[in-house]
Amino acid sequence: MQALVLEEKLRLSLCDIALPLAMGPKDVRIRVARVGICGSDIHYYKHGHIGPFVVEKPMVLGHEASGVVAAVGNEVHQLAPGDRVCMEPGIPDMSSRASLEGHYNLDPSVRFWATPPIHGCLTTEVIHPAAFTFKLPKQVSLAEGALVEPFAIGMHAATKAQIKPGATAVVIGAGTIGIMTALSARAGGASQVIISDLSAEKLAIAGGYPGLVPVDIRASSLKERVGELTAGWGADVVFEASGSPKAYDDIFDLVAPGGTLVLVDPVLFNVVAAQAKEARIETIFRYANMYPRAIALLASGKVDLNPLISATFSFGQGIAAFERAAEGRPADVKIQIAVEESAE
Amino acid sequence: MQALVLEEKLRLSLCDIALPLAMGPKDVRIRVARVGICGSDIHYYKHGHIGPFVVEKPMVLGHEASGVVAAVGNEVHQLAPGDRVCMEPGIPDMSSRASLEGHYNLDPSVRFWATPPIHGCLTTEVIHPAAFTFKLPKQVSLAEGALVEPFAIGMHAATKAQIKPGATAVVIGAGTIGIMTALSARAGGASQVIISDLSAEKLAIAGGYPGLVPVDIRASSLKERVGELTAGWGADVVFEASGSPKAYDDIFDLVAPGGTLVLVDPVLFNVVAAQAKEARIETIFRYANMYPRAIALLASGKVDLNPLISATFSFGQGIAAFERAAEGRPADVKIQIAVEESAE
Amino acid sequence: MQALVLEEKLRLSLCDIALPLAMGPKDVRIRVARVGICGSDIHYYKHGHIGPFVVEKPMVLGHEASGVVAAVGNEVHQLAPGDRVCMEPGIPDMSSRASLEGHYNLDPSVRFWATPPIHGCLTTEVIHPAAFTFKLPKQVSLAEGALVEPFAIGMHAATKAQIKPGATAVVIGAGTIGIMTALSARAGGASQVIISDLSAEKLAIAGGYPGLVPVDIRASSLKERVGELTAGWGADVVFEASGSPKAYDDIFDLVAPGGTLVLVDPVLFNVVAAQAKEARIETIFRYANMYPRAIALLASGKVDLNPLISATFSFGQGIAAFERAAEGRPADVKIQIAVEESAE
Amino acid sequence: MQALVLEEKLRLSLCDIALPLAMGPKDVRIRVARVGICGSDIHYYKHGHIGPFVVEKPMVLGHEASGVVAAVGNEVHQLAPGDRVCMEPGIPDMSSRASLEGHYNLDPSVRFWATPPIHGCLTTEVIHPAAFTFKLPKQVSLAEGALVEPFAIGMHAATKAQIKPGATAVVIGAGTIGIMTALSARAGGASQVIISDLSAEKLAIAGGYPGLVPVDIRASSLKERVGELTAGWGADVVFEASGSPKAYDDIFDLVAPGGTLVLVDPVLFNVVAAQAKEARIETIFRYANMYPRAIALLASGKVDLNPLISATFSFGQGIAAFERAAEGRPADVKIQIAVEESAE
Repeated sequence: MQALVLEEKLRLSLCDIALPLAMGPKDVRIRVARVGICGSDIHYYKHGHIGPFVVEKPMVLGHEASGVVAAVGNEVHQLAPGDRVCMEPGIPDMSSRASLEGHYNLDPSVRFWATPPIHGCLTTEVIHPAAFTFKLPKQVSLAEGALVEPFAIGMHAATKAQIKPGATAVVIGAGTIGIMTALSARAGGASQVIISDLSAEKLAIAGGYPGLVPVDIRASSLKERVGELTAGWGADVVFEASGSPKAYDDIFDLVAPGGTLVLVDPVLFNVVAAQAKEARIETIFRYANMYPRAIALLASGKVDLNPLISATFSFGQGIAAFERAAEGRPADVKIQIAVEESAE
Repeated sequence: MQALVLEEKLRLSLCDIALPLAMGPKDVRIRVARVGICGSDIHYYKHGHIGPFVVEKPMVLGHEASGVVAAVGNEVHQLAPGDRVCMEPGIPDMSSRASLEGHYNLDPSVRFWATPPIHGCLTTEVIHPAAFTFKLPKQVSLAEGALVEPFAIGMHAATKAQIKPGATAVVIGAGTIGIMTALSARAGGASQVIISDLSAEKLAIAGGYPGLVPVDIRASSLKERVGELTAGWGADVVFEASGSPKAYDDIFDLVAPGGTLVLVDPVLFNVVAAQAKEARIETIFRYANMYPRAIALLASGKVDLNPLISATFSFGQGIAAFERAAEGRPADVKIQIAVEESAE
Repeated sequence: MQALVLEEKLRLSLCDIALPLAMGPKDVRIRVARVGICGSDIHYYKHGHIGPFVVEKPMVLGHEASGVVAAVGNEVHQLAPGDRVCMEPGIPDMSSRASLEGHYNLDPSVRFWATPPIHGCLTTEVIHPAAFTFKLPKQVSLAEGALVEPFAIGMHAATKAQIKPGATAVVIGAGTIGIMTALSARAGGASQVIISDLSAEKLAIAGGYPGLVPVDIRASSLKERVGELTAGWGADVVFEASGSPKAYDDIFDLVAPGGTLVLVDPVLFNVVAAQAKEARIETIFRYANMYPRAIALLASGKVDLNPLISATFSFGQGIAAFERAAEGRPADVKIQIAVEESAE
Repeated sequence: MQALVLEEKLRLSLCDIALPLAMGPKDVRIRVARVGICGSDIHYYKHGHIGPFVVEKPMVLGHEASGVVAAVGNEVHQLAPGDRVCMEPGIPDMSSRASLEGHYNLDPSVRFWATPPIHGCLTTEVIHPAAFTFKLPKQVSLAEGALVEPFAIGMHAATKAQIKPGATAVVIGAGTIGIMTALSARAGGASQVIISDLSAEKLAIAGGYPGLVPVDIRASSLKERVGELTAGWGADVVFEASGSPKAYDDIFDLVAPGGTLVLVDPVLFNVVAAQAKEARIETIFRYANMYPRAIALLASGKVDLNPLISATFSFGQGIAAFERAAEGRPADVKIQIAVEESAE
């Protein structure tokens, strides 16, 4: 089976690899169609590790995937060969305490695609549990299906925020996750989402969506803009998605009394200022139970992720796709690889 | 001061009336611009009472109002003469226990416009606490401002429902409040809102909005339709806004496991079926703290209430307006009276 | 293997039965020590069915059990032979949507002990998933361990209620579940729990616990008593655990504005009165994730369930135990069977 | 009127002072009985300021008070002369947005006793709004009444934590607020509360309460102890009440997956570790709506605050009381001043 393999730091190869393909009664076999390249894939490619996770032997990359079901295990009833699907990349122990309590994403024994030593999905075929494989409605393309994973992060952040209908939200940072969070917050109940960044290109993409108000912090003060747009009250919810320590300097000045701060990209910060607002702070780790509602939003037309696909490469051009993604062009949001075009 | 007065059941007059106009330091004086006619106004007009509230002496009708500030008390800083505003019609005792706990709508001593013996606002000028008077942004017309009150009911229902982003909602009943609830649920996070009724005219109005899926229950089964649209899982939230006992026969068949039922129009029902879904049931009473977020949704363009104004009458034609509203034409959603056109 | 078998309505036998004992890698084998008799066991014994669940062939009864681990599967690490344990009797499909969302109790495919056609645990040995088998700390006896199941129902009701520290609660009905709910509410944060019933004997047992205030509704008005004890404000939470339609006549008069009604035993009722209080109504179905916290309360000494064990019979006297339980003596709360005394 | 006045830093005098005593229709006049000395009083005494609040002219100290009603305004119905009461010391603008939303404690215009330039209550008589004056049941002494204020801080922290019945809590720091928080958490639903400190004396006081497990961090590792007591899962809720930066080094090692951290005394910290647990972080600012439930806990006997009164001084000995409090003796929890002994 062909796969895009990270041999070691900075060395990718498109080669044949023998992957275990034993299929259990609750599993499905999927022909991979589209895979998006994530910041973590690029980080492994450039640095060979992320925190304690080190690439010690060749590893297939990729965890944002869609595909077409080729076969199903004999206890699988909700899926059938030919179904177009997307896949949630982390597989927990379903009988762990974290799973029983509904946050299976926090199970320490979770196996997550392209997190060493687990292989990713940039290959022609994968075996996956049916419980983490989601059928795409006919309105949702396979390209959009491969965007559900990063969208689920934004959806999880917006869900944890418990946004009240009509609330005002702020998203700090207009990278891929920042935009996904802003779209989730707007679709998830906010009347307006103020999104800030230093990059005019990213703000132009974000500002192209209705309800998203871009603020270029090189040109204007985010604090003043939030004050103007909320009659001095502050935003009900602030999402930190920049990972920039500077973002925290006055972050609680942006929050309304009794408001919420959601840390998508957490850093060191001073919570003394939180107290005067009695702010709630939520932290998130990936997502849980987000795929069905994320797909529903795409199917309903309420969210359109297509403008976020910056370029699509063929599988044969997979290494070039990674080189482009690693460039970090300011107007690039998501680079995808079409693994099997006939699947689409 | 001229006012539209209900002298007694079925007898309205447009006449001069002396209303007390003492203004406290935290009050504002407002020239009334638009007033919408509510089902309760019509009920008082037709029957002379609602439950324990009986019209025993002449009473000014109307509680859905917008206007222009004419003067402000000397402790009022957030409003100024000339501001276009809408008004929340219930005034609680702000130091009651219910108010301190944040649900001032439940204070038993609340004074509510056009609820005997309190006069309503179908008059040229009113005095109102600044805390319950909300400035309209320039994008929001005075006609829309007078729709904020019924919209706030839908918003309160959607807020209580704690809709997760991308959830599926059902609204039973496509009357004014049903449509307001459906719009609030959609803007408040739902990917799709299935709305059911017996009236093709009302469903046509509801179905004109994106994301609202009309179901004519004379022609098709709501339960089957919800099953189809949720892959058999059920809706995350069901709003009952029809007040029809028949609606409850299989209402929990519509609800997903762990889902929520919001009773906008409650009746007698059997909760045994609720248990198997472990459903949460929320009841609502008017609204609290909804105006700022309701106005924000209108200002952002996410919700457009203009299609719901079926006809507008001048103040001089106020009695005709009531006669039209009392007809209950199937395609009528909201009849408004333009009290002072120069104000607009 | 010996078991207490319901052959058909009103016919029990203590006999040998061949039960499947295949043990998976995540299972444990347990020597059963104590089993409590539940109202549902008695109902099957007297009537042969509960709703749609009909005893069509001989079925072992019992689902409230404790025991001692005899062997563990090779993927089980948190338990070892010799551990004293109690068992949660419902086994869901862990990869169902309801399970993934954290309410595995709502999975329609759950297999629950002594619910036809699933055998119960009134037998000498059972195989059970380790994930639903909970180690008892040394302070908690096997007799108390067999009370964790009904206690978990009360705990689930109290958890759903989201009791604020110091709140006042009312429990209507002082049967086993009513008392369990009252103890859970008190330990779970209530300052006082008013508990009502018609039985002086049951109220005497309930009233023996600190913080439980018994009200005999033959002698005094529950509504008046709640008014006195809450300075007219009403109770923050009301639990309905009597299943008596009469209980609903004025149930919302007991609830404070913004309060909560938890339906442990639901019936037909009129929710119009709920609206004026804007009450939230929670329904419950068994429990999920309650065992660890229930056991923690017993271990800490905060809750003592021993006074609720009315009588203990040997396994050989199992039929007599059922006859006693079926009598429904007013002072009986829980009858237990000591299946294997040497285990204790 | 006699009062204990802070003339300037380190200079207290017990002298006559003219305080404005205009009483509105919703106010009551109260003869002060007991006043507790708070850390903030001592801080003003020692340093003359707290953050931006500077004592620029003589100010009466004290904000933890109980007393006896001497007279009531003509719109006050729930209180009468002779009633024993305690008083909530912060008076917000009841029509502010924060108040309307139920968190009046966050209103920026709140007037709080003994926060410059507002006088405190260490005087013989005060005028106070009836809405913030709470009647003490006969079981609750005036000495306990003066402890309701610091207890309300612990109650507010425990309420924000949304403790599930039977949960395990940790409180870092066994000062007055730490102990109050631990008692609130235990009464508010926790099965056990692990409380840590460096002071053997304070831990001895805390450990004297059932359900509080003291950990001396000079002698043992808090992390290991929490691991042992929670079978390695971690605590459901951790309260930080020490204000010590060292406490944050491994604070998320104490928290269970999906758990909550409540910052009573916030400092700078690194939230990266929060993410892996997906922890929720709550911050608190004083309290709102806590007095009724705090008093209910005292009246029910579930919480006994008497052991926390370390010494009581007469009003004439008020300066000596402050000197004692300023010593910070390790076994001192609360020093009280009996302003008018005849009132008790």
